[in-house]
This record gives sequence, structure tokens and C-alpha cells, in this order.
Amino acid sequence: MMADALRVLVNGKPLDCISTSDRGLLYGDGLFETIAVSGGRLCHWARHLQRLQSGCERLGIEAVNAAQLAEECRSLVQASQQAVIKIIITRGCGGRGYRVPERPRPTRVIQVHDWPDYPASCAERGIKTRICHARLGQNASLAGIKHLNRLEQVLASREWDSPDIREGLMLDTDGHLVEGTMSNVFMVKGGILMTPDLTLCGVAGIMRARLLELAQRHSIETGIQPVDPDTLLQADEVFVCNSLIGIWPVIGVDEHAFTKGPVTANLQTLLLDEPVSQ
Amino acid sequence: MMADALRVLVNGKPLDCISTSDRGLLYGDGLFETIAVSGGRLCHWARHLQRLQSGCERLGIEAVNAAQLAEECRSLVQASQQAVIKIIITRGCGGRGYRVPERPRPTRVIQVHDWPDYPASCAERGIKTRICHARLGQNASLAGIKHLNRLEQVLASREWDSPDIREGLMLDTDGHLVEGTMSNVFMVKGGILMTPDLTLCGVAGIMRARLLELAQRHSIETGIQPVDPDTLLQADEVFVCNSLIGIWPVIGVDEHAFTKGPVTANLQTLLLDEPVSQ
Repeated sequence: MMADALRVLVNGKPLDCISTSDRGLLYGDGLFETIAVSGGRLCHWARHLQRLQSGCERLGIEAVNAAQLAEECRSLVQASQQAVIKIIITRGCGGRGYRVPERPRPTRVIQVHDWPDYPASCAERGIKTRICHARLGQNASLAGIKHLNRLEQVLASREWDSPDIREGLMLDTDGHLVEGTMSNVFMVKGGILMTPDLTLCGVAGIMRARLLELAQRHSIETGIQPVDPDTLLQADEVFVCNSLIGIWPVIGVDEHAFTKGPVTANLQTLLLDEPVSQ
Repeated sequence: MMADALRVLVNGKPLDCISTSDRGLLYGDGLFETIAVSGGRLCHWARHLQRLQSGCERLGIEAVNAAQLAEECRSLVQASQQAVIKIIITRGCGGRGYRVPERPRPTRVIQVHDWPDYPASCAERGIKTRICHARLGQNASLAGIKHLNRLEQVLASREWDSPDIREGLMLDTDGHLVEGTMSNVFMVKGGILMTPDLTLCGVAGIMRARLLELAQRHSIETGIQPVDPDTLLQADEVFVCNSLIGIWPVIGVDEHAFTKGPVTANLQTLLLDEPVSQ
């Protein structure tokens, strides 16, 4: 398949093709990053790269050649005002069986996608969400990293059809709130900004880390802790976030209504004022 | 990539290539089967097909065209005395994001592999195993099915190098014994054949099902139940099984020694005497 409509590089070549022996396909044995592109620049590249390298280290995948990866990404988006870069790094090809071959050569996939057409109202007025039935299994050895084993998120996102629902919130198998299917979740209660602890499951989002730092720099008290659904429903403010959507206030969780609050609005403003690091 | 050395069909075509937008790669959104081929025939085809269809149903993937799949598999192995067929069914291609596109067309991958050169001693004298540090997360909605989210098995299989260790046994996050990285596990205690309950995690193996049925037909009492590591270590006999290895007696779990016992030997004989259904 030639990579025309979708702009793709696989190991540096413009061909939308990976082998059926790639362990990314066989076992989800790899990682990904989703990066906003603005004015031809990769937003917060250093943070994404750092998370990718840390994920490689945790899975025992050879470290990425950062200069090469950055160059390939930039070559794809230099003409893009707004776009999305998705990077996938897999352990590479291997024989049948889970055992890792002796010196696997990682596979490097870069895709450019159009910027998603989110309505402005999502950030301005907020979104409705639901709590999904699909749960997140707990496993500390995979928690935090953005790996390719995402069936739980796929199952959760199949639970609703209504375009009014913009995100599903997920609990772990013990019933703690963890994250959205594609976002991290924050709550404000008594002026304190809280987000679920991700020691046992969940993806440690780049935007989540940025917001925690931003809050601390602006003397907003923060807490990272286990959160049960009652704590969520009793919060003064709720929002979800990721690298593409920024902050979306949550104005509904199932039948429970919320209003966009001052801490959420303040963080949205602070975020817009932040320089986009590369 | 042409599919020469590795014999491969992707959606019926002899080309070792899937799109980087295939959800099998992006999210592990799919299933697989590993089938023994003997004398050009697909051993226990009906059971493998049934598990594959049941997995598709649970993940909401369109049912497989069974006649087409069987015909493609047979076309690849008709000249093979002994080989392994691996089938991968993914939900197909989709845009960026977990939401499933409206009518995705599943991707169908069939690979033929050489028969693995397991030493005869594995089945005859038995194998040494270890209990892995890597745990299996619990999630009832994914338990039992042979899906493509296999990072836990990959991490477990990276824990040892010694060729003397032929399999790693895995516990779930609550400390219950579940299975081997590539096999199911059975124990015999007081003449009763026991295997772990797979309600919360694990793969419900075809060989596991066959052995449970075989035991019942030959009046061997069976039990499917939660198993803790102490129960394993106090067993009279232990073995692991899958569709390729058959039964391998376990003669060691870490420092704990076992001997191949009469129930294991009996099941091995009964298995050899069984007709190979197609």
C-alpha cells in the first residue's frame, strides 16, 4: 500500500506496510505517542520523546534514535499548520512465540493525521460523559506507559453511540476511577485539584503532567490519589484532558450535572498562555 | 514484502503486509489461533474455529467466513507433513482513536510456520519451569479469549534465559496460579485432575478443553478452581499443555522437584490414541 492519503513512514520509508511478523501486531508489543503539530512544529516533543524512551526502557525495547525520529517527524509535517503525528514503536519482527528474539530491530511507524474537527463548544461549554461498564485491569508493570495493549479502551468506546457523549470514564476492576478512554481526568474539590493515582493502571498523559506542573507553579494545591466514583460525583468541577483536546470541562457524568468552574477556566487560560516547548 | 520464506496470506493475497492503520497493530484489537498441521490436515479445526468465532463475538468483530478461512489455510498447508498455522483476525483498519469505524472490514492473516523442534525429552521426561514475577491483570471481559493484547506474556518470557527452563508459570495480581506463558497448567492431587479457573484471566486453551473432556470420558475426576502456588507445590503431578506440545510433564517448579506421574502418563497415552478431528 502506498502511503498517499495517509502520510506514513515505516522505518523511514514512505510505505504503509508492516510485516505480519511484527510483534506490534502479534502481541501489542510496543508503544505509541500522539503529538499535536502546530505551525509545522511538534508540540512538547521533549516530553513525548521522554515518555516514549521511558516506555521502551520498561518493556526492554531498544532505545529510539531520537534525532532520526525527530527528523522524520518534522519532514512529514513541515508544511502542516495543524495536524497530528502518531508514532508507533514496536519491538520489531520475531518468530512465532512470546520469547523475544536475540537482537530484534524495533519498527518505527510515523503517521500524519488531519487535525480532528472538535467543536469549539467542547472546550468552551464542556462535554457530557458516561461511566463505562468496561473496566481496566490492574497491573503495575504496565501502568502509566502508553503501550499497544488497548482492548479495554476499545471495548469501553463501543458502549455508546450518542454523539452527545464525548468521552467515557473508566474504573479499574476494584471500582476506582482511573481515566477517560482517551484522556486523563481531573476533579476540583474545595479548591484542590485532584487526579487519580496511576500506580496500578492508566496512561500517564503528557497533558496531565503539564497541568500538574502548571497548577503547582500557580499555587493551586494538587493531589494524586485513589478516587472512587462518589468522590467524582461530589466534586465541584470535573474536566478531562489530553495533548490534542487540551482541557474539556465535564458538564455531565451520566445523569449527574456539573458546571464549568473557575479552576478549570483558569487552567485553560494558563495553558493557552504557556509557551509551546519543542 | 513478498511472502516467500514465511508463507503468508493477508486477506487471501500472498503478501506479507498489513497497513499501519490496522487496529490489530494500533490496539491489539483482534484474536489469534495457533493450529497444528499434520499430514496436510488442520488438527481440531472445528474447535479452533469455534473459539475464534466466540472471540470475535465477544469483541464485537464481524464473524469470520469459515469456509473461506478453511480453504485458505488448507491451500497453504496441503503439502506440509508437519507445520503450524497461525491465524490472526483483526477488526480491520480504522482512523486514529479507539472508536470503532462504522463498518470495519476485518483483516485476515494466515501464516505457516515450520513445526517447532521441541526435544522428545520434553514430553517423555518432562520440563523444568519457573514461577514468573510478571503477573496477569484480572479482567473478566477479556478472560478466556485468545486476543492480541499479550504484553504480560512477553514480559514474563523475558525473565529467564536458561534453555533448561522450558516454560514460565504465571500468577494473577491476586497471587493465584493461572497458566503458563504459552500453555495451560494442570495438577493432580489425590487422583483428581485440577486446572485453574479462568473467569478473571488466562486463555482457555483448546488442549485444556480436550484434556478435561478426555479425563471425564475416562472417569478421571476433574476440578476447575482457583489455585494458589502452595496447592501447585503440594501436587502429586503437574503438567503443562497446548495444541502444539501436547502434554509436557513438569519435573521442576523453581527449586521444587516433581516426578512424572501415572495420571500424566495415562493422559499422554489417551491423547495419542484419540482421533484427530478436523
